[in-house]
Amino acid sequence: MAKIATVITDMFEDVEYTDPAKAFKEAGHEITTIEMEAGKSVTGKQGDATVSIDKGIDEVNPSDFDALFIPGGFSPDGLRADDRLVNFAKHFMDEKKPVFAICHGPQLLITAKTLEGRKATGFKSIQVDMEYAGATVEDKEVVVCQDQLVTSRQPDDIPAFIEQSLKLIK
Amino acid sequence: MAKIATVITDMFEDVEYTDPAKAFKEAGHEITTIEMEAGKSVTGKQGDATVSIDKGIDEVNPSDFDALFIPGGFSPDGLRADDRLVNFAKHFMDEKKPVFAICHGPQLLITAKTLEGRKATGFKSIQVDMEYAGATVEDKEVVVCQDQLVTSRQPDDIPAFIEQSLKLIK
Repeated sequence: MAKIATVITDMFEDVEYTDPAKAFKEAGHEITTIEMEAGKSVTGKQGDATVSIDKGIDEVNPSDFDALFIPGGFSPDGLRADDRLVNFAKHFMDEKKPVFAICHGPQLLITAKTLEGRKATGFKSIQVDMEYAGATVEDKEVVVCQDQLVTSRQPDDIPAFIEQSLKLIK
Repeated sequence: MAKIATVITDMFEDVEYTDPAKAFKEAGHEITTIEMEAGKSVTGKQGDATVSIDKGIDEVNPSDFDALFIPGGFSPDGLRADDRLVNFAKHFMDEKKPVFAICHGPQLLITAKTLEGRKATGFKSIQVDMEYAGATVEDKEVVVCQDQLVTSRQPDDIPAFIEQSLKLIK
């Protein structure tokens, strides 16, 4: 069983949280939702999903988690405006723990300056940002880099994203 | 009188469109709102402002405009997923016409690969993206580069943004 830190705030892409989170839980893993503040709820951009935040960023230590999940939408851009969230994400990349980022999720990894030399994908609008940040971007449904970083582009890619993510947290 | 192309879609930061647009019009300039499609309205992320789109991107030629205005919010990220909008913005940068970009506005200029060697600012969350794209980022309310590119960070900076923008379209 893996402890998966999930960083999320308002305007996340609803199914990019709900579908992977359901699959991870069904596989026996534990999801902890983390935002700037604990005790609140955040809402997806489609208005379909509301997520209760388990922990505020000041209450958690990245060393206590085995993997990081970053759902997309406009949530990652909100998170990366806070240096604490950027540093939290950087830990997982530096320690080579599994990181699962979909759609705009890689934005947080760019701001953490952790994509240099990595192979990855992301939503179309951020692909040039990712290239500038030193990543080799592949326009594929899922890209797995060094058995550690799993990235996908958009909601259509969710099944492949889940499949490859689960392989890294057996 | 300058003809100012304004590229905008849903989820723009309301006052980052309304305040500069009002000031530009009061100074005698003409604003043309441009989106992927004509004949629709787009809504700000605060829900305070709705903007009628004057022209679809396929109906306009960038040569017919004197300047480009890119309001912030999540609008620029929506626009830059469409290559036609990216190419439209590139024209103004390549031709050294005045470009006014606030908050997330510079995202469109990153995707157009036009920030290399430029001095600029932007919303905190995109500053690392801008640096990776080759810009020298200054954390100031307004940055004017080569009497052509005016950038600001956030709504608080709007008065300085308007003042410097107007100087370039006397």
